[in-house]
Amino acid sequence: MTDAAPDGRPASTAGETETLDADREYRQGAVDLLGVLAYGELSAFERLAEDGRLAPTLADKVHMATLASRQIDHFQRVRDRLADLDVDVMVAMQPFHAPFNSFHEYTKPKDWLEGLVKAYVGDGFANDFYREVAAFVDPETRALVYDVLSDQSHADYVVDKVRTAIEADRRVGGRLALWGRRLVGEALSQAQRVAAERDALTSLLTGTVDRPGMDLAAISRMFSRLIETHTERMSKLGLQA
Amino acid sequence: MTDAAPDGRPASTAGETETLDADREYRQGAVDLLGVLAYGELSAFERLAEDGRLAPTLADKVHMATLASRQIDHFQRVRDRLADLDVDVMVAMQPFHAPFNSFHEYTKPKDWLEGLVKAYVGDGFANDFYREVAAFVDPETRALVYDVLSDQSHADYVVDKVRTAIEADRRVGGRLALWGRRLVGEALSQAQRVAAERDALTSLLTGTVDRPGMDLAAISRMFSRLIETHTERMSKLGLQA
Repeated sequence: MTDAAPDGRPASTAGETETLDADREYRQGAVDLLGVLAYGELSAFERLAEDGRLAPTLADKVHMATLASRQIDHFQRVRDRLADLDVDVMVAMQPFHAPFNSFHEYTKPKDWLEGLVKAYVGDGFANDFYREVAAFVDPETRALVYDVLSDQSHADYVVDKVRTAIEADRRVGGRLALWGRRLVGEALSQAQRVAAERDALTSLLTGTVDRPGMDLAAISRMFSRLIETHTERMSKLGLQA
Repeated sequence: MTDAAPDGRPASTAGETETLDADREYRQGAVDLLGVLAYGELSAFERLAEDGRLAPTLADKVHMATLASRQIDHFQRVRDRLADLDVDVMVAMQPFHAPFNSFHEYTKPKDWLEGLVKAYVGDGFANDFYREVAAFVDPETRALVYDVLSDQSHADYVVDKVRTAIEADRRVGGRLALWGRRLVGEALSQAQRVAAERDALTSLLTGTVDRPGMDLAAISRMFSRLIETHTERMSKLGLQA
């Protein structure tokens, strides 16, 4: 099947190998995206379950527990997709333990309201980013990611609770605005860490020889979009971004 | 509609009122059973989520989170059944906050293994009791209760982990056997508190004028059954009851 090229190298094989490598990297990018999502869901479960303990009423507690358990439903769907791709979810999550754990360690909510803002603003930002990355993976993975991320039932609840708290005490707004900015700062710093360490994930965005990605201008536009929707979320809460 | 009886009392109305009262109490018994189950599921969610934080591996953590989220699925089904009966789950759970919270306060697991034993032995005992009570409620409620309680996926997992730990260190067996006995002692003491305060729940078991229940001999046989299956669970774990 392989004809020797004039220079003696089996030309078409070299070409195939490059494509295979690119394919492998492309696939690894999808696996990384699913891995980061899966670990994100698990972390969100833990955090929502813990924040639920600070809930002022039993109804709030039920709300948080319901949200937490929904993360596990999502986790299971992501795990199943990884299994379709012959990847163990535990292996796929491995690279993301450290950045997520650091993020959560540096952003421990001091009270119930900070927990709510973190769940809405922090997860909102992360989810927007996952959606951007998902544009570059295979259609089946993309559909799953969009579907899992479309679950926005938490938003109205948080907006209502936070706005009520700010109306009752104006100073709460200032404190939570600072908190929202810190959350995004920490999230960006951990995202940079992931980008530096996970070539496969990064090259989904930037593209490879065989597959076009975003150039620097496109990446900068992506960040503008992320900041814009973040600002929208903050203003829905009645907070300055 | 009401004929005066010879003694001047409106006889048939008195009879109807008694039946209505008995019906109301019967219905309240079902509502109490669903209420105690709902609050039990919520408490189990919190406890499993918290115990998951002590999990030695990420796979164990995923297992605990999955179990925790299943409690919320059960909770939602119980809540829906209560809604069918025109009862708000929050109201139905109210009488059971104090006994459950006391139980959990007095039986805080000191480590991962104690948490596992509590989830298996404590919940097993409570579930057997709910099943006994469910024999006396309406068929639809009974079917739901049996179905929710049939979810025993946790058992094999706990048995495996606990037996492995005992094989590695015999002293663990002695400590966990004591722990299992304490759990049942505390559970019985809280159950007595509930029985004393919730006439509707108690009279499901003991019956009313219009509806036969268990006599003392039957109640004593019920306790024998509960202790017997508790002993079976302990011995599956390799522990003396």
